Amino acid sequence: MTDYAVLDISRQERIGISEAILCEGKTPQQIAGIIASADGRLPSVLLTRLSEQTFRVLPASVRASIDYDAASCTGIWGYLRAPGQNASVAVVSGGTSDFGVAREAVRTLAFHGEAADEIYDVGVAGLWRLMERLDQIRRRWVVIVAAGMDGALFIVVAGLVSGLVIALPISRGYGVGSGGYAALHTALCSCAPGVAVVNIDNGYGAACVALRALQMMRRFGKNGPPAP
Amino acid sequence: MTDYAVLDISRQERIGISEAILCEGKTPQQIAGIIASADGRLPSVLLTRLSEQTFRVLPASVRASIDYDAASCTGIWGYLRAPGQNASVAVVSGGTSDFGVAREAVRTLAFHGEAADEIYDVGVAGLWRLMERLDQIRRRWVVIVAAGMDGALFIVVAGLVSGLVIALPISRGYGVGSGGYAALHTALCSCAPGVAVVNIDNGYGAACVALRALQMMRRFGKNGPPAP
Amino acid sequence: MTDYAVLDISRQERIGISEAILCEGKTPQQIAGIIASADGRLPSVLLTRLSEQTFRVLPASVRASIDYDAASCTGIWGYLRAPGQNASVAVVSGGTSDFGVAREAVRTLAFHGEAADEIYDVGVAGLWRLMERLDQIRRRWVVIVAAGMDGALFIVVAGLVSGLVIALPISRGYGVGSGGYAALHTALCSCAPGVAVVNIDNGYGAACVALRALQMMRRFGKNGPPAP
Amino acid sequence: MTDYAVLDISRQERIGISEAILCEGKTPQQIAGIIASADGRLPSVLLTRLSEQTFRVLPASVRASIDYDAASCTGIWGYLRAPGQNASVAVVSGGTSDFGVAREAVRTLAFHGEAADEIYDVGVAGLWRLMERLDQIRRRWVVIVAAGMDGALFIVVAGLVSGLVIALPISRGYGVGSGGYAALHTALCSCAPGVAVVNIDNGYGAACVALRALQMMRRFGKNGPPAP
Amino acid sequence: MTDYAVLDISRQERIGISEAILCEGKTPQQIAGIIASADGRLPSVLLTRLSEQTFRVLPASVRASIDYDAASCTGIWGYLRAPGQNASVAVVSGGTSDFGVAREAVRTLAFHGEAADEIYDVGVAGLWRLMERLDQIRRRWVVIVAAGMDGALFIVVAGLVSGLVIALPISRGYGVGSGGYAALHTALCSCAPGVAVVNIDNGYGAACVALRALQMMRRFGKNGPPAP
Amino acid sequence: MTDYAVLDISRQERIGISEAILCEGKTPQQIAGIIASADGRLPSVLLTRLSEQTFRVLPASVRASIDYDAASCTGIWGYLRAPGQNASVAVVSGGTSDFGVAREAVRTLAFHGEAADEIYDVGVAGLWRLMERLDQIRRRWVVIVAAGMDGALFIVVAGLVSGLVIALPISRGYGVGSGGYAALHTALCSCAPGVAVVNIDNGYGAACVALRALQMMRRFGKNGPPAP
Amino acid sequence: MTDYAVLDISRQERIGISEAILCEGKTPQQIAGIIASADGRLPSVLLTRLSEQTFRVLPASVRASIDYDAASCTGIWGYLRAPGQNASVAVVSGGTSDFGVAREAVRTLAFHGEAADEIYDVGVAGLWRLMERLDQIRRRWVVIVAAGMDGALFIVVAGLVSGLVIALPISRGYGVGSGGYAALHTALCSCAPGVAVVNIDNGYGAACVALRALQMMRRFGKNGPPAP
Amino acid sequence: MTDYAVLDISRQERIGISEAILCEGKTPQQIAGIIASADGRLPSVLLTRLSEQTFRVLPASVRASIDYDAASCTGIWGYLRAPGQNASVAVVSGGTSDFGVAREAVRTLAFHGEAADEIYDVGVAGLWRLMERLDQIRRRWVVIVAAGMDGALFIVVAGLVSGLVIALPISRGYGVGSGGYAALHTALCSCAPGVAVVNIDNGYGAACVALRALQMMRRFGKNGPPAP
Repeated sequence: MTDYAVLDISRQERIGISEAILCEGKTPQQIAGIIASADGRLPSVLLTRLSEQTFRVLPASVRASIDYDAASCTGIWGYLRAPGQNASVAVVSGGTSDFGVAREAVRTLAFHGEAADEIYDVGVAGLWRLMERLDQIRRRWVVIVAAGMDGALFIVVAGLVSGLVIALPISRGYGVGSGGYAALHTALCSCAPGVAVVNIDNGYGAACVALRALQMMRRFGKNGPPAP
Repeated sequence: MTDYAVLDISRQERIGISEAILCEGKTPQQIAGIIASADGRLPSVLLTRLSEQTFRVLPASVRASIDYDAASCTGIWGYLRAPGQNASVAVVSGGTSDFGVAREAVRTLAFHGEAADEIYDVGVAGLWRLMERLDQIRRRWVVIVAAGMDGALFIVVAGLVSGLVIALPISRGYGVGSGGYAALHTALCSCAPGVAVVNIDNGYGAACVALRALQMMRRFGKNGPPAP
Repeated sequence: MTDYAVLDISRQERIGISEAILCEGKTPQQIAGIIASADGRLPSVLLTRLSEQTFRVLPASVRASIDYDAASCTGIWGYLRAPGQNASVAVVSGGTSDFGVAREAVRTLAFHGEAADEIYDVGVAGLWRLMERLDQIRRRWVVIVAAGMDGALFIVVAGLVSGLVIALPISRGYGVGSGGYAALHTALCSCAPGVAVVNIDNGYGAACVALRALQMMRRFGKNGPPAP
Repeated sequence: MTDYAVLDISRQERIGISEAILCEGKTPQQIAGIIASADGRLPSVLLTRLSEQTFRVLPASVRASIDYDAASCTGIWGYLRAPGQNASVAVVSGGTSDFGVAREAVRTLAFHGEAADEIYDVGVAGLWRLMERLDQIRRRWVVIVAAGMDGALFIVVAGLVSGLVIALPISRGYGVGSGGYAALHTALCSCAPGVAVVNIDNGYGAACVALRALQMMRRFGKNGPPAP
Repeated sequence: MTDYAVLDISRQERIGISEAILCEGKTPQQIAGIIASADGRLPSVLLTRLSEQTFRVLPASVRASIDYDAASCTGIWGYLRAPGQNASVAVVSGGTSDFGVAREAVRTLAFHGEAADEIYDVGVAGLWRLMERLDQIRRRWVVIVAAGMDGALFIVVAGLVSGLVIALPISRGYGVGSGGYAALHTALCSCAPGVAVVNIDNGYGAACVALRALQMMRRFGKNGPPAP
Repeated sequence: MTDYAVLDISRQERIGISEAILCEGKTPQQIAGIIASADGRLPSVLLTRLSEQTFRVLPASVRASIDYDAASCTGIWGYLRAPGQNASVAVVSGGTSDFGVAREAVRTLAFHGEAADEIYDVGVAGLWRLMERLDQIRRRWVVIVAAGMDGALFIVVAGLVSGLVIALPISRGYGVGSGGYAALHTALCSCAPGVAVVNIDNGYGAACVALRALQMMRRFGKNGPPAP
Repeated sequence: MTDYAVLDISRQERIGISEAILCEGKTPQQIAGIIASADGRLPSVLLTRLSEQTFRVLPASVRASIDYDAASCTGIWGYLRAPGQNASVAVVSGGTSDFGVAREAVRTLAFHGEAADEIYDVGVAGLWRLMERLDQIRRRWVVIVAAGMDGALFIVVAGLVSGLVIALPISRGYGVGSGGYAALHTALCSCAPGVAVVNIDNGYGAACVALRALQMMRRFGKNGPPAP
Repeated sequence: MTDYAVLDISRQERIGISEAILCEGKTPQQIAGIIASADGRLPSVLLTRLSEQTFRVLPASVRASIDYDAASCTGIWGYLRAPGQNASVAVVSGGTSDFGVAREAVRTLAFHGEAADEIYDVGVAGLWRLMERLDQIRRRWVVIVAAGMDGALFIVVAGLVSGLVIALPISRGYGVGSGGYAALHTALCSCAPGVAVVNIDNGYGAACVALRALQMMRRFGKNGPPAP
């Protein structure tokens, strides 16, 4: 155990989501120290916002036990689950620039054993691109939609599919679109009812919303939790 | 059919949520006209943000066919579903002032046949109040948390329960809390993973997020949608 | 001529748009005074944001020479043009609440002799409503799209039609949608290229953008202005 | 076709504006991949926000087929249209710092075959500079005005010319002018009627608004689209 | 002397501007009490933001000793100075709606013995209106410019006259112009050098800036303060 | 004494807190010059926001007399007090990223002779971590709570302990959490009564609030200041 | 006990501050119900933001047991403590308009048995007014400073006194001062070290910060809490 | 004359302030080009925001004719005026970090022949530092006050001196003070009457406001401009 960090060992048991380490703002020493403190206490740990630059200066022994994905800046330390066969989630994005954050969601799902379809660059400017993939999207329990700038994709998808729709606003943009606030506000104001919104660039959080819904389905099924 | 409104008749079939009428910003004449155009085409319609003042000036014949609830400013026109016996949702609020918006969520759920537990005034300033109800909350599929001002209740609940947690920020407040932005931002920044956020005061939307998750569970159960 | 107002008599000649009076923030005495000063110098004057309450306290003689429309809070003093036979503009709105501002645009166009189709409540939540009217919209030179809250309608229309698309954000909304900023930012961030944006609730301005384009077409036609 | 990008092949036919690639936020590999996927399917592609640094690391074969302009960070891949002889558009700027964004508009117009006059550094602080060029500006169908800081140039031009006026706010500035919001808000609040506004630094979008108006004029001329 | 207010008796001597009472947010009892405490200690007091409604409920004896102006919501209690013969200041406004705040400045100047020219509704949308009055404006030491919405008038005036230019932004407006922030930011970002800015709707403050400059001129003249 | 800086020599005597130098925004030459001017006039000086990079380019003789701490970017020049034996303050943080700012508070306290317990990474997502340390925290006069993102830790602590609670918001975060505004607003809106808030990242200021309270206690004890 | 409210009965014991009821946003029925539920369980309850209008429609029996103060909109139900003889706190305000909020702090202190000096209208524009009262202010343990608009009074006081300084920003103001944000930001940015800030208009909260410090002093005195 | 810049040759004659070149956002080539175009047409040019890095890459011949000051990032090309003997302006700053911007004002004044006293680091946290210099400050026609963070210095100075007070907010700061908005808003909200405000970090603009006042005094003296 380190001075500066206290692992939430019981998180998986308590809320069904494992402890993860947000690496942004931590030194390589701190990251390595936290991983060391997890050894023997947690089977695996998800590392998010781990830049390639920081990953490369981690101790070689730590690096060797991490499955690193540069596009999403994520690493999985320890035990790697075999991917699920049937995708329960569709991850849909409006443009190529949303790729990294969308993949953070995909990796978080995979870390928890859930497979996802990935459908990129189907923005509303050319609506036919989305329409071509609509049947596929409609077959999933959950749809995570990643979009920056106008965020209109959130609304169009939520108006067409019946599953849980999670809006993941992306910070990429310029002018009034910079920082992702325009996309965030579009999501929150959706005229299509029932859009669940997460913080800008929070691919990890979008996946966690999906995981909360999926574990409830998997645990209880059609009849829900038992009456007290 | 009116000039100024086009009912989305196929919404229930398309996304599993019925057409609703946001009454704020519409004249009594427009509301009555839309209801008239629904007659014979939809079994029931949910009316939201229908102030008591506006309700009272609707034509008597329209008023008579509406089940009106003043606390939540909601009305249900047409067929009233019998309430479900087992609550699938817990609606939790931080203070007495959140009552109206929280009830909008409860009414929206009831309109779609889902029952909810209502647990009010269990804010974090006196944490023992929440702890006393925690077992009850943990037995529900979905928890809708309504809170204004600091919004800390969102985080505490999300750190303790495994179901789908939906944060419903409330506009009531003053100073930097006015308009509900502080509570909204707290929800979006949650350190407890997997909080689904909706717009400020959007009790209707919070319920719709819950409905999207619940219908997936009820339709497919543990195994999810069939493979294509 | 009054002390407090100087009519821009040459505006029509200079930029092809007539002087108009924004009545909000003016006393009835000031409005009547400005109309008096226009008498004999301008054939007609458009009055915008003229509330029914203010209209009713204008001197009877002034009132009698005004064609007043309560829904849009507009009045036309003086000469009324006969409406054009072929609509050059389509005015499309996302919801019933956008009606008043959209009509301000229609009235401004009519004041300048341009006819418009009016197509209301075709928001993206039920996309089929827009698709049913798409052929009609595509036959117009200019499309003015009025939408509040998410503003997704701006993007969908701009991705489907080739005419000049003018986004008219509406202030009606709540939470992060209040004041119309979310819709405004959606319009400015449009991924569909070439959306012309005007100020929130500025139906008058949206029509004036259309008028600038239309007068150029009508004056010069296919070959444009003569070379110097 | 790539995994991460889906070209909107039918855009030109649908809305009269060709597919363009926003290069900011894409890796050189992604840009080269998208161009490869366009080969044989589109005659040419406009590349925007392509920094000199990124341009230089594109594969040499790709670079060779791109007409690159460093000042505007634009590239045209494929077929280069011969410039039109008569300018239909005037591009006017308030200061030297607006040069790059203004040129993005000029390049976008050229890509679509429209020629433009370029008139730089005629800001309102020395009003005589604009007045000297006014006759030239007035002879164009469309005027694109680029300005940062106070944005007063938008208003002065819109009060003096009758063509379509498009305000293009520029982010260059400091203090309350930083980011271009002051100029954007000036444009949206214009007291001179009928200013069409686009996002900050969106030279591409300003040109696309112009293109929508111009293509309508060129296609239909004085009489507009045929009645249905 | 009251419990709740302490008159700054030495203000005139210290900074050359007399104590004034901002009446907004004070009860009629408080206003009357402060005036009573001034009696015998100050020759006169300026009352600002004194609404007609509040003025009417002041004690009759107090009311009788106040020179009240409803348009500017100002009152002068006590000694009234004879107006100066030559105007040292020009007060210029962009529209009729700026009248009240502009008059607050005029009244504050008059209270201190300075006369002002008043030139209303010469906004930039019709630039010729300003040009017609330019010679008159150029003959004043100080120009106070009141404008809302775009605020372009500040910039045009500052580019044309050599006197001290004080920008007085007005809150009247809608959309992004509401509250007067767009006009304020235009003033602060002025490309024309040397614009002195005051708070939105602060006609009193604009006059006080003028008074500080004028008293220096009147006291010391061409050679300035004596060397120590 | 330098041209550009005037030491506030009497600060310790006046308000019980010593002069400190904010090094951010000063050149190494300026910092060294200010220290030189303190020599012989102040026994010690606290240096805050002194980056390691700047520290390293200070003259060797100056560096040698500074006790530098890289984690908090603080230096103590001159006399170093022996640490107090009993901690009067607990410094509690929500995550590892808050470490540096929290330590700035600890160092400021130590500079003034006050010892502090340091309790890191006890955020609300895993509430048991705080509960394990609660007895320790409750035994201190003052609790400084450092937290970024949601800031819920401020509220939970303030609802559980009776000492002076000082909220220290941290800028680390992303999306709506970036800059620390969400945490700041949570603190200001606290439903748990009596949270004293300081500026984002102002560890120095949080310690100074504590010092003001502590010195009053130490000076006067239970009976407070003597009556006049 | 009511459905909509759960009294935090143990608050006084837990944190040394009694339960209070924020009446804004509650119906008279809810307020009366909460008071009824307190009867027999709490000796007294503080009611804040209780408008005169709401107070008047409370049941007569409830009204009779409330000590109501209209200026501060506070009521004390139940047992009234005798005021302390020596003031431990000075409440200082910048202007007459801050009176109501400042009195909310005074009443909250009195409810908990602490007396306060009240010193109004000593704003920085006439600095001598503050200097005349400085000796009196310096003799108190805690100084609560209420100020709107520029908030400079916070800084001047904090630079001159050694006690705990609590800044209480006031919402009264106009232009950029409206809502109290300018004063809040001044307080948070104080160059005078150690200003404890509370939410805008939160007189209750300012008093609670003082109470936390005072109870620690009174309980433990010079030597602080016992070592464990 | 260049393509990208049009010198405002008549500015000095028109408004009494010479043309200046804002170098930020211009390439060295553009700067050199503009200077070349000034040669023979203007006796001297002021260059602002000219970083040392850019200055060093200007052509040697251009560099040789520039009087460069690194602290203020200003250069004077061409004729250098002899400094005036008596300072007409006092430039006062709150801290060492304001040095560069304050010097931009001093250099702009010198370029126009006006001398200034420079008084640094007299912030309100140690009020005695300002009081020691007050007599000197009071002897100047104009006082420019530079301050960041809380900006309280603006208010204190304006309450004590009778000359024209110009507030120059500085962007240096952190948390809510970052960007200089807190200081700007303090200045605009000043309770001390008659503060003239300029944009954040606009030392050039502050000097130009002073120049407008000074030239009026020098030209006309006590009696002001001649009557028409």
